Amino acid sequence: MRGTVPVPDLVERARSGDPRAVARLITLVEDDAPQLREIAAALAPVTGQARVVGLTGAPGVGKSTTTSALVAALRQRGERVGVLAVDPSSPFTGGAILGDRVRMQEHATDPGVYIRSMSSRGNLGGLAAATPQAVRILDAAGCDTVLVETVGVGQAEVAVASLADTTLVLTAPGLGDAIQAVKAGILEIADVFVVNKADRDGADAAARDLRGMLALARREPYEWRPPVLRCVAARGEGIDEVVEALDKHRAHLAEHGELARRRAARAAAEIQAIALASLSRRIAPHASDVLADRVVTGALDPYAAADELLRTLH
Amino acid sequence: MRGTVPVPDLVERARSGDPRAVARLITLVEDDAPQLREIAAALAPVTGQARVVGLTGAPGVGKSTTTSALVAALRQRGERVGVLAVDPSSPFTGGAILGDRVRMQEHATDPGVYIRSMSSRGNLGGLAAATPQAVRILDAAGCDTVLVETVGVGQAEVAVASLADTTLVLTAPGLGDAIQAVKAGILEIADVFVVNKADRDGADAAARDLRGMLALARREPYEWRPPVLRCVAARGEGIDEVVEALDKHRAHLAEHGELARRRAARAAAEIQAIALASLSRRIAPHASDVLADRVVTGALDPYAAADELLRTLH
Repeated sequence: MRGTVPVPDLVERARSGDPRAVARLITLVEDDAPQLREIAAALAPVTGQARVVGLTGAPGVGKSTTTSALVAALRQRGERVGVLAVDPSSPFTGGAILGDRVRMQEHATDPGVYIRSMSSRGNLGGLAAATPQAVRILDAAGCDTVLVETVGVGQAEVAVASLADTTLVLTAPGLGDAIQAVKAGILEIADVFVVNKADRDGADAAARDLRGMLALARREPYEWRPPVLRCVAARGEGIDEVVEALDKHRAHLAEHGELARRRAARAAAEIQAIALASLSRRIAPHASDVLADRVVTGALDPYAAADELLRTLH
Repeated sequence: MRGTVPVPDLVERARSGDPRAVARLITLVEDDAPQLREIAAALAPVTGQARVVGLTGAPGVGKSTTTSALVAALRQRGERVGVLAVDPSSPFTGGAILGDRVRMQEHATDPGVYIRSMSSRGNLGGLAAATPQAVRILDAAGCDTVLVETVGVGQAEVAVASLADTTLVLTAPGLGDAIQAVKAGILEIADVFVVNKADRDGADAAARDLRGMLALARREPYEWRPPVLRCVAARGEGIDEVVEALDKHRAHLAEHGELARRRAARAAAEIQAIALASLSRRIAPHASDVLADRVVTGALDPYAAADELLRTLH
């Protein structure tokens, strides 16, 4: 499939479930291609159906294994599933190292599953803008659930939370104490907690610590108390309960008007990210190098330099 | 000390080592106070002496304990030391949870050590802009070394790397395999690797895996091969070797002209961050809410919405 296929054709093919059209569209948004705006315009009226689930946690908790087990469970009940594995943390290499993607191989030949990795390619702003568009493409392709898996602790999770209807935070025994988890701002974004590798020592303690923290935390305005579940994703144990919790949260959101609020907040964040990315492209990169030299020597302070830089905006 | 103390006086006091003046100045930059530009202008000509060391790693590797041990070692040879513990990962709570700050208490009464935690207070852009200013304040206060410790894996480390002359990446046995570490983009930013808790099972394997990865990685343009060291920070074991590696890297940077290059890149990133933060303040927040509703219903795509938003720039 060439780059010359017109966007309306691509979107039409993607809507009929053609995986190559889906892949091509995601590549175009990831590459910030000239067709991006046309794609966004074509997608707008045909999306908004999919449930978006964010899945995040520190390295080593078993995110990919858990994602794979969730995909299997959702497929079992006949859902079409999209998976976006977003790696915002490797801006220098120009590509995610997908060593653990092999865990997703079991779904690679299933026509009801789309799997795609996205990395920042040196442009975090670009990734922030492209990911919601990729979600829309999977939505348009008829996915009932889109799982967005993110590597990392910190800003990445916050980005996932702003993208998802429901955010699942995964943890595992032996990854540092509960205070460390709270430090990462996790309590605020988690709708469902899952302790993976629950057959290992320390799983009880991890679950207990999380419950203790949650008991102290402020109640959500829409009165949802994040459950703390346990699973052994590698053996599929406890996964049905996780799916059930995701369903429950989604129903609760809809009942309390929170789904609409979250989606509006998500759209607002998306619009702002696009606007800021567009502004930053308008800042002359050469100007900032010249100014940087003057800041290094102490001849200019960075705020005065920023003022000069903004005068290069065209 | 009141907010009415004139900035030149505050900077003068900070330069003479008054810890209250240092604290007050950092608060002002953290709060994005009206005096911020005046402070930046006063600092520009009197800074650029301190060595800036970034220290980062996943939750649970022992960052605070290691920072504390490094402070002790640097103090032993008579350096003045500044510590900035930056927490970019908790944008919702409005304050870092500083449970592990207690590990730094041993230095709290040492007049040769400044310790300060900085959190994002809901404004990541603000933190990105304030942290380099806080480094400058500690530099002006006569710190020979400023240690910038960051929580988190991912963008936070990248931010540290762009701020530091030398970036130390800390790991520990049992925190997931080496591929996970690489996924987090760590290979690209680390100048020195340290396996902490090296008395535990798996320390050999962790060090070996890192060395294997490094052997495969591209060589740095300035021919530095990041060493992989081991320590038990809680007992101070191996810390002298870590300090030695930091010194060596710094000398190597200077020899190869890389220090100047890094500092220029750092200044350029800082200028751009300030410019973007200033632009984002000029985007009307109300406008993006109205536009978001139209994006949710599919009436407008987010790129078209961003165009409309940018028309509100004044």
